[in-house]
Amino acid sequence: MRLTEMDKTALAEQKEQWEEKYNGFKAKGLSLNMARGKPAPEQLDLSRDMLDILNSKSDLIGEDDIDYRNYGLLSGIPEAKKLFCKMIGVSQDQIVVCGNASLNIMYDIISTAYAKGICGEKPWCRYEKVKFLCPVPGYDRHFAICESFGIEMINIPTDENGPDMDMVEKLVSEDETIKGIWCVPQYSNPTGIVYSDETVKRFAALKPKAADFRIFWDNAYCIHHLVDSPKPVMNIMDECSKNGNEDIVYILGSTSKVTFPGAGVAVLGASRKNLDYLLKVMGIRTIGYDKINQLRHVRYFGTFENILEHMKKHKAIIRPKFDVVLDMLDKEIDPLGIGTWTKPDGGYFVSFDSLPGCASRIVALCKEAGVTLTGAGAAFPYKKDPEDKNIRIAPTYPSVDELKTAMEIFCIAVKLASAEKLMNE
Amino acid sequence: MRLTEMDKTALAEQKEQWEEKYNGFKAKGLSLNMARGKPAPEQLDLSRDMLDILNSKSDLIGEDDIDYRNYGLLSGIPEAKKLFCKMIGVSQDQIVVCGNASLNIMYDIISTAYAKGICGEKPWCRYEKVKFLCPVPGYDRHFAICESFGIEMINIPTDENGPDMDMVEKLVSEDETIKGIWCVPQYSNPTGIVYSDETVKRFAALKPKAADFRIFWDNAYCIHHLVDSPKPVMNIMDECSKNGNEDIVYILGSTSKVTFPGAGVAVLGASRKNLDYLLKVMGIRTIGYDKINQLRHVRYFGTFENILEHMKKHKAIIRPKFDVVLDMLDKEIDPLGIGTWTKPDGGYFVSFDSLPGCASRIVALCKEAGVTLTGAGAAFPYKKDPEDKNIRIAPTYPSVDELKTAMEIFCIAVKLASAEKLMNE
Repeated sequence: MRLTEMDKTALAEQKEQWEEKYNGFKAKGLSLNMARGKPAPEQLDLSRDMLDILNSKSDLIGEDDIDYRNYGLLSGIPEAKKLFCKMIGVSQDQIVVCGNASLNIMYDIISTAYAKGICGEKPWCRYEKVKFLCPVPGYDRHFAICESFGIEMINIPTDENGPDMDMVEKLVSEDETIKGIWCVPQYSNPTGIVYSDETVKRFAALKPKAADFRIFWDNAYCIHHLVDSPKPVMNIMDECSKNGNEDIVYILGSTSKVTFPGAGVAVLGASRKNLDYLLKVMGIRTIGYDKINQLRHVRYFGTFENILEHMKKHKAIIRPKFDVVLDMLDKEIDPLGIGTWTKPDGGYFVSFDSLPGCASRIVALCKEAGVTLTGAGAAFPYKKDPEDKNIRIAPTYPSVDELKTAMEIFCIAVKLASAEKLMNE
Repeated sequence: MRLTEMDKTALAEQKEQWEEKYNGFKAKGLSLNMARGKPAPEQLDLSRDMLDILNSKSDLIGEDDIDYRNYGLLSGIPEAKKLFCKMIGVSQDQIVVCGNASLNIMYDIISTAYAKGICGEKPWCRYEKVKFLCPVPGYDRHFAICESFGIEMINIPTDENGPDMDMVEKLVSEDETIKGIWCVPQYSNPTGIVYSDETVKRFAALKPKAADFRIFWDNAYCIHHLVDSPKPVMNIMDECSKNGNEDIVYILGSTSKVTFPGAGVAVLGASRKNLDYLLKVMGIRTIGYDKINQLRHVRYFGTFENILEHMKKHKAIIRPKFDVVLDMLDKEIDPLGIGTWTKPDGGYFVSFDSLPGCASRIVALCKEAGVTLTGAGAAFPYKKDPEDKNIRIAPTYPSVDELKTAMEIFCIAVKLASAEKLMNE
């Protein structure tokens, strides 16, 4: 029976049973974490052998006869460009291979735009206010960058095809102070949305009022599939090229969740004009990134096809964890009608929507019972979920057994919070 | 006979002979490089075994039971803090272990100060103009950072004890828009100066008008000795502490020239107040630095004493190269009285001063004959050497034989340029 249809007496009775069960969990003093999109230790083991690839006997001279142990090659080693340009769908001269974090690349681009401007345009710090469009729910760390620079964030609703493109097109064509939009086109964080062809085409055809408007195309999960035949996403750079609009997009990717978070390789794909400008700034910031680690990745994988094979091993480990989450929600929450959630084909998250006004309470109840979730509202700019209903579930890090327990607690927390809400209505 | 004392006829004759010799070199079509402070391949070989230290069998769980292959530990792994705090002379809680480049740390601090301010002070971008003090000659990449942010640079003369502290004290106490000073206290780039105790004490006692004035204490060469008993430099953090002035200094160091440039580890030493503030910004910029590479360094060296032993091997390789440069200058240039130069006890450079107005011509003559030097003026803000006399010689990268040839060409270029100048007087 749907909880919303229950009368208050039945609801109170039901709530009492759930409380008892909840208190039982609480008494166990558990400590489980579903907060961040962290690979599990078994996933990290998949790349263990990468540490054998380079040793004291290795030839560390690159294909251009450059010693990769020494300074130089600001834009990355050519071998890594060849390998990773396929991952993010650009040509070899449209990629820069950087350090260990694509977040760092995005931060640095915005920091550069703020202090120095983009490709000759006015630095953002010289504006009274600049704005970013933020499809919601979205990635908290994107929003944190904007917030830290005082960039005003405008929520853009999303549906199963991606952001509301009518709204995006209208806003960027009217307002010169709108300078960017955050996109996770494949398996959006946290919703798992895969942008439709039409969405990609409309992005590639955007005609913003601001010459320095950029799409931050954070393709963090482009090879992180949870299904055998993933729906492809159109190549944004190709579409932009058709429109002579290559300068509008920065494409980001990394191996953080392919090999080792923190010891992976991050890449930036962009037009030559964009890269040439950014490389000038990069050349002041650093003499070069870690070429030995770039080479380690190249020698380990060899080909992009091997990276895709490697990703299947990740899938084998994490797919069952997503199944635990989805099965439990189907069984426990669906019949009661007190939540909806996404069933992603890839990425690292399940996005759960409770009854409006319940998310903070659910997260708090979980916390009290030893289950850490991403803070309610985290997937929204300024951490403000207008309906207080979205919760990001990250199933990858805990073991299947831990996850089962964590999800039991999660479900009972959802039930309790929903009953509390309905009784107070 | 000193060239300045020669009459014009003798000078013309002499010049003709030198021209002939110079043209002989030019005809050889050489390609030699003394431009950058790059380690030689033999120096890189010294750290080859570091690549064997971590392999697929390694335990990558840190002392706090944290898996170093995964996300986390923004401020660096504790093992690396313990090891490297000794290198830069701070306590374990006064260090952050970062990525591969101390230049990047310095850039990021200034970028943060520019956009967001330092420890609650007004962001520098909100000033009409901010200024930095630049002891000259100095490190070109320091100056490039300032220039890129539009920070006005003020030249500070240096002598064998370091920067002119009377001038530094006067300026910082009077002008609130002076926000920092670049210091390479041990074996300054390019002069090799070692700051005297009095200089360090006066830095540590500075009372600047600006609350966000900081000393950028770039101790890049603190363990890069060329002599057996190097003159120690006073510990700036200790001196600052005595004055309750710990917040005034950022201390930088790295293993770029200890292990591998580009694949080393860079560190920042600072007061807790400074670090807490910067870590907040860092936490938005990145999830964490490369902990595996930090661990690789820790396991390879084990103790700071072992790092010092390792540095003796570097000295054995590069000391003879410095000797080639110094011997050649002694033999070829000293008798003619057409130049002075430093005889450093460490670091990566010999700083050569020609007769005023000759440096650009010497660099051009070398270039034409196939020897690349750092551009004349590079060691000064805006690349403007007011006397056009300073040239930075970087002897480490070429082999001893290449260096001999390069220095022959350098000396003949100095002679030619000097003769040209004297004949036109």
